[in-house]
Amino acid sequence: MSETAALAELAKRRGFFFASNEAYGGTAGFYTYGPEGAALKRNIEDAWRDLFVRELGNMELEAPTVMPEAVFEASGHLEGFDDMILECAECGATHRADHLVEDAVPDIEDAEALGTERVAELVAEHGIGCPSCGAALAEEPVEEFNLMFGTNIGPGSGAPGYLRPETAQGIFVEFPRLKEYARNTLPFGVAQIGRAYRNEISPRRALVRVREFTQAELEHFIDPERDRPPIEAVEDVEVPLYSASAQTGDGDGGVERHTVGAALEAGPLESEWVAYYLGRSVEFYERIGIDMDRFRYRQHLAGERAHYAADCWDAEAEIGGNWIEVTGFAYRSDYDLSKHGEHSGEPFTVFRQYDEPRTVERAVVDPDMSYLGPEFGEAAGEVADALEALAGRDRSAFEGDSVTVELDGETHAVPVETTGFAVEEQTEAGEHITPHVIEPSFGVGRLVYSVLIHAHGTDTVDDEERSFLELPAAMAPTTVAVVPLMTKDGLDERAEGIAARLRADGFEVAYDDTGNIGRRYRRQDEVGTPYCVTVDYETLEDDTVTIRERDSTEQKRVSADDLSAVIRRLVSGDALSEL
Amino acid sequence: MSETAALAELAKRRGFFFASNEAYGGTAGFYTYGPEGAALKRNIEDAWRDLFVRELGNMELEAPTVMPEAVFEASGHLEGFDDMILECAECGATHRADHLVEDAVPDIEDAEALGTERVAELVAEHGIGCPSCGAALAEEPVEEFNLMFGTNIGPGSGAPGYLRPETAQGIFVEFPRLKEYARNTLPFGVAQIGRAYRNEISPRRALVRVREFTQAELEHFIDPERDRPPIEAVEDVEVPLYSASAQTGDGDGGVERHTVGAALEAGPLESEWVAYYLGRSVEFYERIGIDMDRFRYRQHLAGERAHYAADCWDAEAEIGGNWIEVTGFAYRSDYDLSKHGEHSGEPFTVFRQYDEPRTVERAVVDPDMSYLGPEFGEAAGEVADALEALAGRDRSAFEGDSVTVELDGETHAVPVETTGFAVEEQTEAGEHITPHVIEPSFGVGRLVYSVLIHAHGTDTVDDEERSFLELPAAMAPTTVAVVPLMTKDGLDERAEGIAARLRADGFEVAYDDTGNIGRRYRRQDEVGTPYCVTVDYETLEDDTVTIRERDSTEQKRVSADDLSAVIRRLVSGDALSEL
Repeated sequence: MSETAALAELAKRRGFFFASNEAYGGTAGFYTYGPEGAALKRNIEDAWRDLFVRELGNMELEAPTVMPEAVFEASGHLEGFDDMILECAECGATHRADHLVEDAVPDIEDAEALGTERVAELVAEHGIGCPSCGAALAEEPVEEFNLMFGTNIGPGSGAPGYLRPETAQGIFVEFPRLKEYARNTLPFGVAQIGRAYRNEISPRRALVRVREFTQAELEHFIDPERDRPPIEAVEDVEVPLYSASAQTGDGDGGVERHTVGAALEAGPLESEWVAYYLGRSVEFYERIGIDMDRFRYRQHLAGERAHYAADCWDAEAEIGGNWIEVTGFAYRSDYDLSKHGEHSGEPFTVFRQYDEPRTVERAVVDPDMSYLGPEFGEAAGEVADALEALAGRDRSAFEGDSVTVELDGETHAVPVETTGFAVEEQTEAGEHITPHVIEPSFGVGRLVYSVLIHAHGTDTVDDEERSFLELPAAMAPTTVAVVPLMTKDGLDERAEGIAARLRADGFEVAYDDTGNIGRRYRRQDEVGTPYCVTVDYETLEDDTVTIRERDSTEQKRVSADDLSAVIRRLVSGDALSEL
Repeated sequence: MSETAALAELAKRRGFFFASNEAYGGTAGFYTYGPEGAALKRNIEDAWRDLFVRELGNMELEAPTVMPEAVFEASGHLEGFDDMILECAECGATHRADHLVEDAVPDIEDAEALGTERVAELVAEHGIGCPSCGAALAEEPVEEFNLMFGTNIGPGSGAPGYLRPETAQGIFVEFPRLKEYARNTLPFGVAQIGRAYRNEISPRRALVRVREFTQAELEHFIDPERDRPPIEAVEDVEVPLYSASAQTGDGDGGVERHTVGAALEAGPLESEWVAYYLGRSVEFYERIGIDMDRFRYRQHLAGERAHYAADCWDAEAEIGGNWIEVTGFAYRSDYDLSKHGEHSGEPFTVFRQYDEPRTVERAVVDPDMSYLGPEFGEAAGEVADALEALAGRDRSAFEGDSVTVELDGETHAVPVETTGFAVEEQTEAGEHITPHVIEPSFGVGRLVYSVLIHAHGTDTVDDEERSFLELPAAMAPTTVAVVPLMTKDGLDERAEGIAARLRADGFEVAYDDTGNIGRRYRRQDEVGTPYCVTVDYETLEDDTVTIRERDSTEQKRVSADDLSAVIRRLVSGDALSEL
């Protein structure tokens, strides 16, 4: 059984995750996290929050998942968040047209870039058939399908709305308010953990390509000219880099390990801000249990980047022989805020104070309305506005005796002497700038999946095969399981008391008294519980219990009184053998 | 300014919550939680999880928000989750038709129950006009509007799907799997905290009536004949009860305070399970900061209950003179699981073992297919099935020489001797039962709102008006603010060091060094920070700092070394004056 199949079976049987609505035949692309999975997911989210919100001093917000159409007109999702689809007239199955072409035509790697028309031609030229039923697809149209889930807001036919395709938009649209919370001072970061949606054409590979997922995104707003990241905090961190040149064959073709500092100086890292977050995130991946030998940072190739993105890297985890993206790190420049500024007409800017006030020359007008009024009637105000705009744009237009302005397609000559044109010196304290954005965007479900795959293993203990999850203690759904040797002679009451005290001390505790003790250990190993505490007859005599460690299967007796302190030390990284 | 208007202003200015997408003119019914609000909300959710999941030993899961149509066909939402709407032809505004009638006709309190036709007649009879523009509405049709947000799942026109109107359905549909995690043993509880959606016709009153909201729901699955709640844990808890009879004027008309035990014995509490959760929840409301003098449990009137609900109570908080529902406690019987069982054809049941195996008489058939086959051809199997069903239903049908079965509208006579009819004794170990459900369903946004309203106050300190939030220390977005007296002479470095240490010790810490010290205290008071730590020149000499308490504004010097321990004591309930 492949590692992904083995994990899928474990995940369903023990309650990590499973396909939703199976009683109704299932709904492709939707997964439910069971009790163990929901706990693991929450621990990963908390670890993310701890680092990216708390430690780095960023804000966190919670925005709605349903947003109005205007937001996605501005963001570009309405226009460009499409996949190419092709429906088989014979069996009704829908396919990604670009994928069909890429699979059938050896030389084509990015069919989407060719456009729907050319892709339709290629389908015909190469006689591509339907993967589901084999029917010829040459006659079928290739269409753009928007991946946002649409809905209607309000009664009747309502107003169009969409489930957000990324949590980021809920942050960007509130920038005018968020900057006030940051006291109008850059840089500042705003984070959000929440659901996002993509109406995928072919959901697949468990939690990798799903239609509803959880993102943890940080939008770091900076002044691109003045703000630099505290790069010294990460310059000695080693990062596994798979550069664009290594991918295209100009380099030696593999992952190279460099410190952040060295890779910034000699390449391939370009943006100091992106480099900073690549370095910072290593700590996070290690903390949640990603196997760093199955991990790399991959640079986007030139063709992969959005046009506004200065430098982009993906964090990728290896799963079942495939590399999957678990985080995208993008320098998004001022694209998002500029777009929302244009579309909403509101200021998505921050006032940047000059070090010293600056004196600038500015062309101004002060039109004589006693002339414009009679001359232009109701349009006089518009003419005055046009003169002001023209002065700002082209001073030379005011050099002759009359100046020409255009209004509703007609030109009007205005005597310069009536415009009050002058060039004045003005003192300015600063200017309005549109911040740039650095965005580390984490896919929480993919992280959960990668951590589980990397943690899952089997070995042999006491001549029996054991399946285990080697999760970091702080991530495990259950930190300690309390197991009485027998459910008699007061052992169970004693064990229940110990479990209650551990719970009161803040640990996630399971109590298990069914089946033989070996079986109970296996059960805990399989869901990743790092410690078992066994209550036996000795406990009744001298108040000691046995702690068993999942990874080493080593056991040690400790005083029941010291239990919470001992477990706290173990969770923070001490090994049982060192106690 | 009313208390709700005052809070709305504070909430927006300081970042608790605000209307979403204001740059695009706003989207009615959608709110974004700013940094302070998101933190408060998370603390409330954690407190809920702590009690209803951790302490009560329930499971928690996380299901998708988008669900397929079949789920809501079964749950009844597709058919019955409607509001009556009426659109004004003149101005286009949409109104709740039943509300218009209730407002205009003194005697009518529940117009919805009258049906759309009668409501349309009443609009005409009473000459009700459009509240927005005044135009007559007599000619306009009254229609049912389904409050679920619809969408399409998958490419092309896709399959119909809906945003879940309650998190509960994501639990119910997975019951066949969840019961396995519970090892097929009742009772067990499954909780979920997540988004739910209602496409409200008239969203209003800030976080009270919104279109997207967060629910914290617990579905407790029980064997109605065998399982009883541990009522002794709550029987001495005092609960403020506003009974149905008090509401209809049969009682003395007010809220009565009883212990859970007394109210179960003498009324008005009916269900022991509902009573148990009313008692349990008091601790939760107190812990998160609900003012229990502005709180009551209100019993549903007979007409308010869903037909399947045995007993229902709402927890209500008083806000700006109105009572709003913050929790619904419902005994939902086997309604949900039965419906999903019927619609999906899967077993939404649990096997209940008898105390001892039982011997029962059962009528069985064993048809002679060598007769049925030639006689009925392809339909022989169906005839056999019909005979088996008939034997289970009506033994007397087999008393004569021949027995009549109906198939596709036609009747067929079958000789009894060919049916193998017999009455046998069978031993059964148990039976399959459909569990009943008790559901406490909390509206998280409404709790956040109630807590803020109840915590908000003003007083006079040093002759200046002070606005504060008296939040419980464990709920406050920030636990402690560190403020240096001056940003010179090393006071700021010292303060930053103290802040970093408090953060490392797990506290939510703010650092504020701008403005005079009084202003900084006010700023913290207004967002509910319970403690400020001031670093001054004495700190540099003897390593002591001042702790200031928000509620008493009292101050006390303590050693910087003891700070974390002292704050831990304060958070757990000790007063500064007692230290």
